[in-house]
Amino acid sequence: METVLKNTSIVKERFLEIRNQTELICKSLQPEDVSIQPAEFVSPPKWHLAHSTWFFEQFILTKYKSDYEVFNDDFAYYFNSYYNNVGERVLRAERGTMTRPTLSEVLKYRTYVNQQLSEFITEGLSEEILNVLEIGLQHEQQHQELLIYDIKYIFGQQPSFPILDFTVQLQKETQSQQFIPIKDGIYEIGHNNNAFCFDNELGRHKVYLHNFEISNRLVTNSEYIEFIEAGGYEDFNLWHADGWTFIQENALNSPLYWHNISDKWHQYTLNGFVEIDGDLPVNHVSFYEAFAYAQWKGMRLPTEFEWEVASKQFKHGQLWEWTNSAYLPYPNYTKVEGALGEYNGKFMVNQMVLRGGSIATSKNHCRPTYRNFFQTDMRWLFSGIRLAK
Amino acid sequence: METVLKNTSIVKERFLEIRNQTELICKSLQPEDVSIQPAEFVSPPKWHLAHSTWFFEQFILTKYKSDYEVFNDDFAYYFNSYYNNVGERVLRAERGTMTRPTLSEVLKYRTYVNQQLSEFITEGLSEEILNVLEIGLQHEQQHQELLIYDIKYIFGQQPSFPILDFTVQLQKETQSQQFIPIKDGIYEIGHNNNAFCFDNELGRHKVYLHNFEISNRLVTNSEYIEFIEAGGYEDFNLWHADGWTFIQENALNSPLYWHNISDKWHQYTLNGFVEIDGDLPVNHVSFYEAFAYAQWKGMRLPTEFEWEVASKQFKHGQLWEWTNSAYLPYPNYTKVEGALGEYNGKFMVNQMVLRGGSIATSKNHCRPTYRNFFQTDMRWLFSGIRLAK
Amino acid sequence: METVLKNTSIVKERFLEIRNQTELICKSLQPEDVSIQPAEFVSPPKWHLAHSTWFFEQFILTKYKSDYEVFNDDFAYYFNSYYNNVGERVLRAERGTMTRPTLSEVLKYRTYVNQQLSEFITEGLSEEILNVLEIGLQHEQQHQELLIYDIKYIFGQQPSFPILDFTVQLQKETQSQQFIPIKDGIYEIGHNNNAFCFDNELGRHKVYLHNFEISNRLVTNSEYIEFIEAGGYEDFNLWHADGWTFIQENALNSPLYWHNISDKWHQYTLNGFVEIDGDLPVNHVSFYEAFAYAQWKGMRLPTEFEWEVASKQFKHGQLWEWTNSAYLPYPNYTKVEGALGEYNGKFMVNQMVLRGGSIATSKNHCRPTYRNFFQTDMRWLFSGIRLAK
Amino acid sequence: METVLKNTSIVKERFLEIRNQTELICKSLQPEDVSIQPAEFVSPPKWHLAHSTWFFEQFILTKYKSDYEVFNDDFAYYFNSYYNNVGERVLRAERGTMTRPTLSEVLKYRTYVNQQLSEFITEGLSEEILNVLEIGLQHEQQHQELLIYDIKYIFGQQPSFPILDFTVQLQKETQSQQFIPIKDGIYEIGHNNNAFCFDNELGRHKVYLHNFEISNRLVTNSEYIEFIEAGGYEDFNLWHADGWTFIQENALNSPLYWHNISDKWHQYTLNGFVEIDGDLPVNHVSFYEAFAYAQWKGMRLPTEFEWEVASKQFKHGQLWEWTNSAYLPYPNYTKVEGALGEYNGKFMVNQMVLRGGSIATSKNHCRPTYRNFFQTDMRWLFSGIRLAK
Repeated sequence: METVLKNTSIVKERFLEIRNQTELICKSLQPEDVSIQPAEFVSPPKWHLAHSTWFFEQFILTKYKSDYEVFNDDFAYYFNSYYNNVGERVLRAERGTMTRPTLSEVLKYRTYVNQQLSEFITEGLSEEILNVLEIGLQHEQQHQELLIYDIKYIFGQQPSFPILDFTVQLQKETQSQQFIPIKDGIYEIGHNNNAFCFDNELGRHKVYLHNFEISNRLVTNSEYIEFIEAGGYEDFNLWHADGWTFIQENALNSPLYWHNISDKWHQYTLNGFVEIDGDLPVNHVSFYEAFAYAQWKGMRLPTEFEWEVASKQFKHGQLWEWTNSAYLPYPNYTKVEGALGEYNGKFMVNQMVLRGGSIATSKNHCRPTYRNFFQTDMRWLFSGIRLAK
Repeated sequence: METVLKNTSIVKERFLEIRNQTELICKSLQPEDVSIQPAEFVSPPKWHLAHSTWFFEQFILTKYKSDYEVFNDDFAYYFNSYYNNVGERVLRAERGTMTRPTLSEVLKYRTYVNQQLSEFITEGLSEEILNVLEIGLQHEQQHQELLIYDIKYIFGQQPSFPILDFTVQLQKETQSQQFIPIKDGIYEIGHNNNAFCFDNELGRHKVYLHNFEISNRLVTNSEYIEFIEAGGYEDFNLWHADGWTFIQENALNSPLYWHNISDKWHQYTLNGFVEIDGDLPVNHVSFYEAFAYAQWKGMRLPTEFEWEVASKQFKHGQLWEWTNSAYLPYPNYTKVEGALGEYNGKFMVNQMVLRGGSIATSKNHCRPTYRNFFQTDMRWLFSGIRLAK
Repeated sequence: METVLKNTSIVKERFLEIRNQTELICKSLQPEDVSIQPAEFVSPPKWHLAHSTWFFEQFILTKYKSDYEVFNDDFAYYFNSYYNNVGERVLRAERGTMTRPTLSEVLKYRTYVNQQLSEFITEGLSEEILNVLEIGLQHEQQHQELLIYDIKYIFGQQPSFPILDFTVQLQKETQSQQFIPIKDGIYEIGHNNNAFCFDNELGRHKVYLHNFEISNRLVTNSEYIEFIEAGGYEDFNLWHADGWTFIQENALNSPLYWHNISDKWHQYTLNGFVEIDGDLPVNHVSFYEAFAYAQWKGMRLPTEFEWEVASKQFKHGQLWEWTNSAYLPYPNYTKVEGALGEYNGKFMVNQMVLRGGSIATSKNHCRPTYRNFFQTDMRWLFSGIRLAK
Repeated sequence: METVLKNTSIVKERFLEIRNQTELICKSLQPEDVSIQPAEFVSPPKWHLAHSTWFFEQFILTKYKSDYEVFNDDFAYYFNSYYNNVGERVLRAERGTMTRPTLSEVLKYRTYVNQQLSEFITEGLSEEILNVLEIGLQHEQQHQELLIYDIKYIFGQQPSFPILDFTVQLQKETQSQQFIPIKDGIYEIGHNNNAFCFDNELGRHKVYLHNFEISNRLVTNSEYIEFIEAGGYEDFNLWHADGWTFIQENALNSPLYWHNISDKWHQYTLNGFVEIDGDLPVNHVSFYEAFAYAQWKGMRLPTEFEWEVASKQFKHGQLWEWTNSAYLPYPNYTKVEGALGEYNGKFMVNQMVLRGGSIATSKNHCRPTYRNFFQTDMRWLFSGIRLAK
């Protein structure tokens, strides 16, 4: 990490570039769009803009920059996400009731912190601060992806289906399907180079894998439509008990954002409401749906270890791929001290791991060891299916 | 009504004045403020702006104006409130998830309908249309009041306590308290002149009242603080069973918007966060609290009939006054035919009547026969207490 | 009251007769049936058996009988219903989780209190105690009726539809329908003789009634089936807004306990599962359904005052009859001091009055001034419809 | 399996012995106790008695015994648990509303099926049927354990804390604590002999384990009290985010059935309400609490693979031991065809594995490969904590 970040002008440039990217995503949002929280798992776009800024203010500027003046004392209360160690905060479910500060004030906040941090970078940063800065940037990139999910959800629930002026475009999965065979044996899992990674990837360790085969491509929309048409959503034998309850209670019969109009499947995308393209990978499925689809095919989802080992041999990065691994600590996982220790460890229960990255993911997050994780019923993320057997 | 409205330029002027008043209330709102719905009983300000406009479009322009072009076909879906007869609509609880149309589009909608209706008025209106126009204007005035309640609630839940640039100011209740005696006998109740009224005021009829006495003024903040300090919120004997459950489940110990800071009661008002003025009438109490206060004083709330009969003898119009009358139809009440029949009748259950008008009420709505009504646990309206015995 | 109760052997006999009646209702219940609470508004039969006993123990024996030994100190906690003044108690919603004391212990409790109270009566009672005794007996009779409702609900939710060995039988409403005209004028309302009544009937007072007409009989099943078949449950214009929500959310299309089997309406009764008899009065309708039916007929429900005034002119006592009057205090209503003051007053909100008594009601409760009251969505009581216009 | 079961008299004897054990557990229950369901995860004892019987009737007698007459056609509806393939059933949450059939009828049902099946066994069973019989017996033994959990919960929620006449007694964990070291390497996991096992134990396979150490005994009550007294329930850093929410929302500060009386911890047990014995293993903790305790000790919970490998070296079988492994299929896990395929597979999500067996477990279920599983917030099972590092 040292060599990458030592040159202060490169550090500053990278900092500003990532910060700017967040605003680029939001540039076509109206002020009315940014304070809304249509579901508890969604955060208002304004909140993302401010929270990622607060992270730098809280963990770098107030801590290390002498004479730093906090932009607004109330913002810690508004824009802390879940760091119990840092104090009281607006409850997650109430983020959508804060109309103030306005978008324009939040953008001023971003500018202020950008300037202050740019200045601070120019003075030269210690290794320790560079590390926190890097976490802050990776964190902001994670929120860029969540921003895209949340904006899509906010727009996708409205009859007017607004369009976002930011391109997020899937590619066709045109290669013919092949199953790549992997030999049994001991493999090494986890992060193993000098580049940045999150604590949950660390503790490189051995796992024993049995022989398996994994698909070279994702399940496509036309394949998934076959599943729907074969009655996949009506056959309880394909589903987990929890999954069956989930689709029954919510009356689901297709992925999120799908609409059947005159017997043709359509889909809301951030770039328009369109007829389904059968060659694109199926998106916005829950873990339950991914599992049921695999059951129906007589196959299964790969484990996260199988996925990581095989990942050099296929293209990934279109959609996060549900694995059949629960999100658990690696052997010898250790939490970071202090507030940043709340980053990952406390979520290691009741979630499943996804691997591979999506078109909404920052490119450097698409590394093979990256562990994404969500509850089994989440569908608003960019999630797809890769089969194994 | 005829004489008032016959002259088209007067009609148009009145129409535009009332329409303008709605925008005046909203002039200091930011776009972020207008799409929010922090509780199901609150509607987003943008929704009020558009719904009151849709009312004129739906019930006058599309019905009577030849060649009228609807501003936007989708708006009926967005901005119908509860008229089942007029078609599908956004569910009340989901009004706060519609970020589009934006405030600016809604203001364009208002301008368009204002122009179209002005034009149409100039052509001269039949008695029938004049009647609907009048209902539309009365309806808009009702929404002006709801706008003030809703804005206050949206702002009052935020730690920054924003201020609205629109004056809504209570007067002190300085007159010394007297109880006005009213003799028993048969009295006439209900609307009895040519001015506008709602259907729920009609069916003028007789009621028999027994001797009673009614206070010449509202209960003040300092009187209410005595009740709080005497343990009023802890003594179940003062409360209805439902009321006791309500304050227990919500952990209430004061009116809405009250905050106890360093042992002094403060209050959020639309014009600032201030220390309580003991001489102002107590505001934002539920029916349950009004009832418990009266019990504590060894008195009671008046019935709506007692209130109406006595109302000539005291000042009212500061706050809606909870009565101990349930909202029920008058003898021989008849619903209007068609969609407007949904205006009042279907709400005549599970609510209590309030009388008198508030500082947020349009002046001409403060007539003695006007019947306002709310559920017993509502506190966000401008509601106060007048004692009887 | 004095003369009626002075003779101790008559007092004792009446006491034991009423007490025995409660056990008669329950005689065919199995121990499994008596601890169940399938809905919050239902109490387990065992609870009724014990609570009505506790009432005598708490308000007479422990208070007035020297050296009285409480049967079991814990029972006050188990079997207090809602008397906040008498201490902590099992929450209403948790009554159904108490499997102990068993039915046999509760019957021992009844025997013990019966013996103790018989003894105490033999010693001679003061006027004051006689009054409380009378309330206790009236109270027990009210619980006899609730027992029948609750047993029917417990049995009626089970596919085996058990039968109760206790006759509760409606009569046909065979008389041809006539509307009895009542002249306008001042009438007196409320209890007006020396027999027992509850505090909510007191405060005899004047009301002014306008001309009205009231049916000489209840609405029958076959009339109600016409309403169903005419689409009454699908036409929102007939319903209160709350009522429409209620039937939509609960997917209702008929009275409680009705089942449509091969296009014929059947009904669970305590004496068997039978095909609907069209001549019997329709039973188990909510206030909302009673109101909607009346709307559909172009008529209305009577007020409780109209009902009381007209009641001498028709047969009643088959089913409690929904009125369009909210349950509110009469002028000059005053709560009794102490715990018994919680009997009625604190429920005078959010409920509607029913008049007339039912086949499950103790005969002496069917007096014309008796005010029964329930929430608008309750259907498990024995409730019917009488039309007015 | 063949050799064990071939002799029909041994088969019959074992069948009747296991069946009898179920009734032994219930022998001191009152009829009032058996139809109650105080929480959705609890089933009424009567239901267990009947459901385990239905299992034999459904999967053996009706399928294989010629001329078998079903005891009661309705019982399949009442007593099917979750087998979608076998038809409609009483919803889990409504099991506690069925007062009929009574306990006595259910016991007749048991006798009838016992007789019929004994007869059938005497005729000699094919391998296939013997297999289903064995599953039925294992299934009944699982329900014996659930019966004990459910009875304890039903009794433990009542102020009278009834005692069960059936001994379930923990032993002291008196051995001094040692951490057993296990060497890294490849280990074999899963069932590997001819005795019965469930499908979720099959697919014996290799795993790679790193060096670890595991405690020779369970955490004791006195150790757990130290955790409580050190503020373990107040320090969010020790908890999963979900766990913190769970203890906050339920205001938990100790294991289930613990009561602090005059500063001493007491505990409801099936054999009485007693002061906590510090040397007994801590029981009735959720996964969240087990995890938090381990965090507080600076250690962790073992994985299920570590546990299985190390299990020969320590005593187990007192309490099910939470592992940090999610309940997932082993490599090459395959579901059984037909209804019995619903036994395990569909629950392999959102649960954690427990190992080792408890004092409420049938002895032959305490095998090292047995995989028990529950949601992370369950506390009514007999669950304890073993530390690893």
